[in-house]
Amino acid sequence: MTTSSFHPPVRTLMGPGPSDVNPRVLAAMSRPTIGHLDPVFVDMMDEMKALLQYAFQTKNELTLPVSAPGSAGMEMCFVNLVQPGDTVIVCINGVFGMRMKENVERCGATAVVVEDTWGHPVDPQKLEDALKAHPEANTVAFVHAETSTGACSDAKTLTEIAHRHDCLVIVDSVTGLGGVELRVDDWGIDAIYSGSQKCLSCTPGLSPVSFNDAAVARIKAREHKVQSWFLDLTLVMGYWGSGTKRAYHHTAPINALYALHESLVILQEEGLENSWARHRAHHEALRAGLESLGLELIVPRDHRLPQLNAVRVPDGIDEAAVRKMLLDDFSLEIGAGLGPLAGKVWRIGLMGYGANRRNVLLCLSALESAMAAQGADIRSGGAVAAAMAVYGA
Amino acid sequence: MTTSSFHPPVRTLMGPGPSDVNPRVLAAMSRPTIGHLDPVFVDMMDEMKALLQYAFQTKNELTLPVSAPGSAGMEMCFVNLVQPGDTVIVCINGVFGMRMKENVERCGATAVVVEDTWGHPVDPQKLEDALKAHPEANTVAFVHAETSTGACSDAKTLTEIAHRHDCLVIVDSVTGLGGVELRVDDWGIDAIYSGSQKCLSCTPGLSPVSFNDAAVARIKAREHKVQSWFLDLTLVMGYWGSGTKRAYHHTAPINALYALHESLVILQEEGLENSWARHRAHHEALRAGLESLGLELIVPRDHRLPQLNAVRVPDGIDEAAVRKMLLDDFSLEIGAGLGPLAGKVWRIGLMGYGANRRNVLLCLSALESAMAAQGADIRSGGAVAAAMAVYGA
Repeated sequence: MTTSSFHPPVRTLMGPGPSDVNPRVLAAMSRPTIGHLDPVFVDMMDEMKALLQYAFQTKNELTLPVSAPGSAGMEMCFVNLVQPGDTVIVCINGVFGMRMKENVERCGATAVVVEDTWGHPVDPQKLEDALKAHPEANTVAFVHAETSTGACSDAKTLTEIAHRHDCLVIVDSVTGLGGVELRVDDWGIDAIYSGSQKCLSCTPGLSPVSFNDAAVARIKAREHKVQSWFLDLTLVMGYWGSGTKRAYHHTAPINALYALHESLVILQEEGLENSWARHRAHHEALRAGLESLGLELIVPRDHRLPQLNAVRVPDGIDEAAVRKMLLDDFSLEIGAGLGPLAGKVWRIGLMGYGANRRNVLLCLSALESAMAAQGADIRSGGAVAAAMAVYGA
Repeated sequence: MTTSSFHPPVRTLMGPGPSDVNPRVLAAMSRPTIGHLDPVFVDMMDEMKALLQYAFQTKNELTLPVSAPGSAGMEMCFVNLVQPGDTVIVCINGVFGMRMKENVERCGATAVVVEDTWGHPVDPQKLEDALKAHPEANTVAFVHAETSTGACSDAKTLTEIAHRHDCLVIVDSVTGLGGVELRVDDWGIDAIYSGSQKCLSCTPGLSPVSFNDAAVARIKAREHKVQSWFLDLTLVMGYWGSGTKRAYHHTAPINALYALHESLVILQEEGLENSWARHRAHHEALRAGLESLGLELIVPRDHRLPQLNAVRVPDGIDEAAVRKMLLDDFSLEIGAGLGPLAGKVWRIGLMGYGANRRNVLLCLSALESAMAAQGADIRSGGAVAAAMAVYGA
């Protein structure tokens, strides 16, 4: 057996992530590797923290990128903040809320589930009711931006309710960060995790997290050791803390961190509010085009994430065949549905660098072509025209 | 605040890892990102598995790169194979054995420690005695290649002893893989973890692991859910298993995997035995040079890892000042001591791409210069001459 070097095709990534990566990020990633305790690298870590604080809109000192994907950032939040015997209210309106429940239970805690229909946001009233029924709860966990459905929940209101009942909140904003309004400090979020490969348009593999003082106080007051050595914040802080003296914990993924640093520099150059507005603008154009194709989004208008568009697959259309044609003929990736939505939706991402006019028009053209190939009655060019009208062109 | 793009200096990395990265690996890392469920990527995953099987010298089906650093690979082994109430014999002869003990305890199991002097290998007789004294033990954990000291333990013999007492073994070969003889199947190792950033000369951030049938059988027979969702092999297998149908578990670190794939292709091109021999040859030259400087390695000759040379700092030499001068004046990184060896040793890595004549000569010249700057009585050029004599030049 002899294996050759791997040369991937050039794709346009419009699935639920990874998203299209800015070439500047790829260039940063291939810069020379230096040591994880090199003074120059330690300075870069300080910049990284400041850049992440900006992206999260927080002054939290404990803001850092976990050296692993979003699932590990999620686990870091739960294993550090939840102890055996705790009760945690978990709001579930998609796949990623279900994972939160798994995490709670694996910490030896009890999960009380608040359920909402997939595609809809978390209902604040249901959370309020659950908290009244479970005064023993000390934590509320919910997903800000559900990657499986494209629903955006009202993180500010949910956090207020949780705090009124003396609970800390753990928030999943893997798909939210950089693409939609998120203000960790103003909203009072206690612990939050995200991912590098969504609206930051970095390569996958890192999970930005942030913890406020209340979260840190709870970690310091723990009675049980954190069950994960790798994710134990009391140890990780020794490396990602302040000052020039950094205690070795694990070897940081140096080049991946170069990439994340560059993606955050790009976000800072654009400005966070501008990035949010850009995502919204391209979403509106995509939405208009999809509607002209007779396609509908599963999320009610006021609760849509611009960066993740879950589209109901029309009757008579083979959803997998459409995705295959997009990949084979257009080198364009869109996502399938997860869980109960498998086979029923496509998920079209407009994330970070990929939230641009070129991608919107390519996707609409390709979808039109693929659906027409299956006999759908579509006016050629209509989708692009509808999108262009929104752009004002 | 405006932060600029980060441009790292070009270093020569001769610490305990990360090691010098082959430019081919950096080039691979910056290739276009594709989706983690893209059929082309799935084919690459199959190649990756075969390449890792070659590096580990195993046919184990469950051989994969964990999407996080070696510490997470370690944790994957322990949380999947160890259950609450188990007794695990942990052999400690350096920092990384201590981490194994931490992992065992965080799994709710009891760790029985077999201790050896740092810098020495694990003593098989002590393991035998501990197993006789603890017939309830079901697992033995030890470090094949101790990164904190440079000692190589006899993994084959230790595994035989463990098996005679009906224990599975968990082996740390983070620094061993690719640099020194390691035969997972021939030696009967049940579970092993490594790292990308040592003798594979890949960027840091991934942890190759492998599990044999006995390990898989134990995982399948577990009574308790694995405490980590991210590292739960019963879930990870759904993605890294066989066939074209891969279940989404987490988003794989695509570009980091390109890099690891390329580093494994390079290893295959060279040949594993050739790589082991190359590490040995450059170690011998470095050793001769160090000895001519009056420096000694802390590990007895027969138990030295060629890729990690722990050098005793002579009396009267400021070890941190030497490392600083190497970094500032030669852009050369060597490592400090860890734990009880902090301030007492330097750790000089000759790993993967960095195990070459250029690095050996640079390191000896730079050390000579830095020690002379502190008033050491050194014959100029003597270290290089001694190394060159070993090279036969």
